[in-house]
Amino acid sequence: MSILIKKGLVDGKEKDIYIEDNLIREISGRINVEAEHKISADNKAIIPPMVNSHTHAAMTLLRGYADDMKLQEWLQHKIWPLEAKLNEQDIYIGTKLACLEMIKSGTTFFNDMYWHFSGIARAVEESGIRAALSAVFIDMFDQEKAKEQIKANITLFSNIRTSSRISFMLGPHAIYTVSKESLQWAKEFADKNGLMIHIHLSETKNEVDDCIRQNNLRPVEYLDSIGFLGPNVVAAHCVWLSDNEISLLSKNSVKIAHNPVSNMKLAVGSALPYEKLKKANVAIGLGTDGCSSNNNLDMFESMKFAALLQKHHTGLETSLTAQQAFEMATSEGSRIFNLNYGIKEGMLADLIIIDKMSPDMQPMHNLVSNIVYSANGSCVDTTICDGRILMLNRQIDNSEQIISEASSQIKDIMSR
Amino acid sequence: MSILIKKGLVDGKEKDIYIEDNLIREISGRINVEAEHKISADNKAIIPPMVNSHTHAAMTLLRGYADDMKLQEWLQHKIWPLEAKLNEQDIYIGTKLACLEMIKSGTTFFNDMYWHFSGIARAVEESGIRAALSAVFIDMFDQEKAKEQIKANITLFSNIRTSSRISFMLGPHAIYTVSKESLQWAKEFADKNGLMIHIHLSETKNEVDDCIRQNNLRPVEYLDSIGFLGPNVVAAHCVWLSDNEISLLSKNSVKIAHNPVSNMKLAVGSALPYEKLKKANVAIGLGTDGCSSNNNLDMFESMKFAALLQKHHTGLETSLTAQQAFEMATSEGSRIFNLNYGIKEGMLADLIIIDKMSPDMQPMHNLVSNIVYSANGSCVDTTICDGRILMLNRQIDNSEQIISEASSQIKDIMSR
Repeated sequence: MSILIKKGLVDGKEKDIYIEDNLIREISGRINVEAEHKISADNKAIIPPMVNSHTHAAMTLLRGYADDMKLQEWLQHKIWPLEAKLNEQDIYIGTKLACLEMIKSGTTFFNDMYWHFSGIARAVEESGIRAALSAVFIDMFDQEKAKEQIKANITLFSNIRTSSRISFMLGPHAIYTVSKESLQWAKEFADKNGLMIHIHLSETKNEVDDCIRQNNLRPVEYLDSIGFLGPNVVAAHCVWLSDNEISLLSKNSVKIAHNPVSNMKLAVGSALPYEKLKKANVAIGLGTDGCSSNNNLDMFESMKFAALLQKHHTGLETSLTAQQAFEMATSEGSRIFNLNYGIKEGMLADLIIIDKMSPDMQPMHNLVSNIVYSANGSCVDTTICDGRILMLNRQIDNSEQIISEASSQIKDIMSR
Repeated sequence: MSILIKKGLVDGKEKDIYIEDNLIREISGRINVEAEHKISADNKAIIPPMVNSHTHAAMTLLRGYADDMKLQEWLQHKIWPLEAKLNEQDIYIGTKLACLEMIKSGTTFFNDMYWHFSGIARAVEESGIRAALSAVFIDMFDQEKAKEQIKANITLFSNIRTSSRISFMLGPHAIYTVSKESLQWAKEFADKNGLMIHIHLSETKNEVDDCIRQNNLRPVEYLDSIGFLGPNVVAAHCVWLSDNEISLLSKNSVKIAHNPVSNMKLAVGSALPYEKLKKANVAIGLGTDGCSSNNNLDMFESMKFAALLQKHHTGLETSLTAQQAFEMATSEGSRIFNLNYGIKEGMLADLIIIDKMSPDMQPMHNLVSNIVYSANGSCVDTTICDGRILMLNRQIDNSEQIISEASSQIKDIMSR
């Protein structure tokens, strides 16, 4: 497939972009070639797409199902009982809805951890976007469960290598749900097979206090002591970190997925120590987390929350600027997941086109400020992933069908 | 004019709504009358519009002009110098852009305080929405300036009583910019003429510390001591309040306009003491503040920030629920400004129709949760104010013209 985008704003200058197969082949003032698709980007800006560094996509099914409750009550009486009812078909439909929402809000890659892996993979494959998928690995310190989980992950890994848009990761859930032995297995298996690992880490103070009680070490120190840390580890949250833990994360080149909306909604009580982590050169991507703790997948909104949460938390207006939030959601994220992203020749043909002529994008003193502080995902006019147009002028094929399928599936789930 | 809305969801039930002139005349299962306009609301929900309790609408002109700077540097080197260049025509165009953005995000009333009153009033009049307008009253403790300001306000008041959609308020800016005598004049003039008063109050810790140093009283105590407080006062911010101040606000039935986005972006360092104020029965509306400290006028986004800021601040997931945020933005706001709002027969024909079939509004476990936590202003499909359709299926007359006028006006301003 070939696409010619005419007159888009790239880094402040009007440019044409020519896409062939799944790569950006040429960017210049005027390109006159024949292309299968021609897109006019007059009055529009072309930017890299959003990279969602941490989510549980199929939890769209639980959007608005339960909010404003105490964490344990919420999990035990609402989230877990409903999750227990979900089958692979539900997850497939929930993930399709999630992918639709992501395409509409300019996200072309997400890092996921959830149940019913095959349902997720099928939805991603059909949707046309990219994902790093991990099955939730929880053994609750039970040897039999650990064995099952290891076997399941080995099987998934051997079956997954079919798609160029989906990569397989290991997903040991957290230190309070996975035994030391399983964490060590995950790390060894990942290292041996060149895989990344997705884990929740230091999200709540309880997690830290429990770890200190049990191991006499803080969570990051504990993971370091069992040899788990490394450059292939993506740790979601990292809200409660000591200086020593920051230095361990830095030394081991661990990557962080920051989820400001979820952290605020679940009242985790602190915020990512952004300045200290940046000083220690730790890579930080941005995530939405799942829809039960956010409740959307809009990375534009999450950028604003990231910047404003830091300002509120530190008391400094200068903390986490619009530019830094934008990089966290785009270039930092794509570096973490080894995506060849950027509006440059030779890069993957993944990009989004932004409408500049909506009232909340005017005047245009500063594009990045408008994107981060004023816009939301609805400013995305066109989404291209892997050289395919997934949304054009906010129109997506099958959109209505996916939404009505999700709507009727949830009725079925609730009646079980 | 008459409007018949068919098959909309009102409080969970499918209803028709008949509007004649500027009132909701009938709501029932099926209405079969002839109407000049017929709107199909299939798969859509009908809710009261958003009430923006505090903004400076024309500051859309400054959107993205300067962010992430120290407050004083930002004001002195960026905001004030640019504001000094603005004339009435600029303000007219900036306010037109603001009204357009508000109509697109479901706001039909805003409480404003800014320069060049006549430009603002003209824009509101043309846009079709409602506003309470106050001229910025600043005397910097200078008697001559105070006299000018008083004269100007008296003139404005005598000229304004022409529109049913615009009400005049007094706008003494803050205790650190307005003398005691002028504050007292404003209160007396307001009381005598049945007007409301719009003031900034206890936004930063500096304001509190300075007031204690100068008056040996905290800001609310100072205003109480000079007889300024009363049920016609709407105080924006109220972030730094002592228990005694909360009790004074309650005793005097002062209304509060809460601006969570602005408070976070400007790093005011604390948050509205919501629970204590609710316990003291203080009415709290929601505002966006101006576009230089937000940077949009999307009340949907502000509802989410209000709920999440409280949760983060208190460490309690149960703080400020979706329902409370929704009421703050709608029913509480309309009560504060004496607007006869609500989806009920006999109420003003001001309402918005929400699209339920976008991906971020599905599934629909809970409409209010989806509105507050998942949606943004782009979920608004249709906006009706004073019995007139201002937006239908996201289409607004003159939208492109207003945006391109604003875009070229800002170029002119920047070249001065």
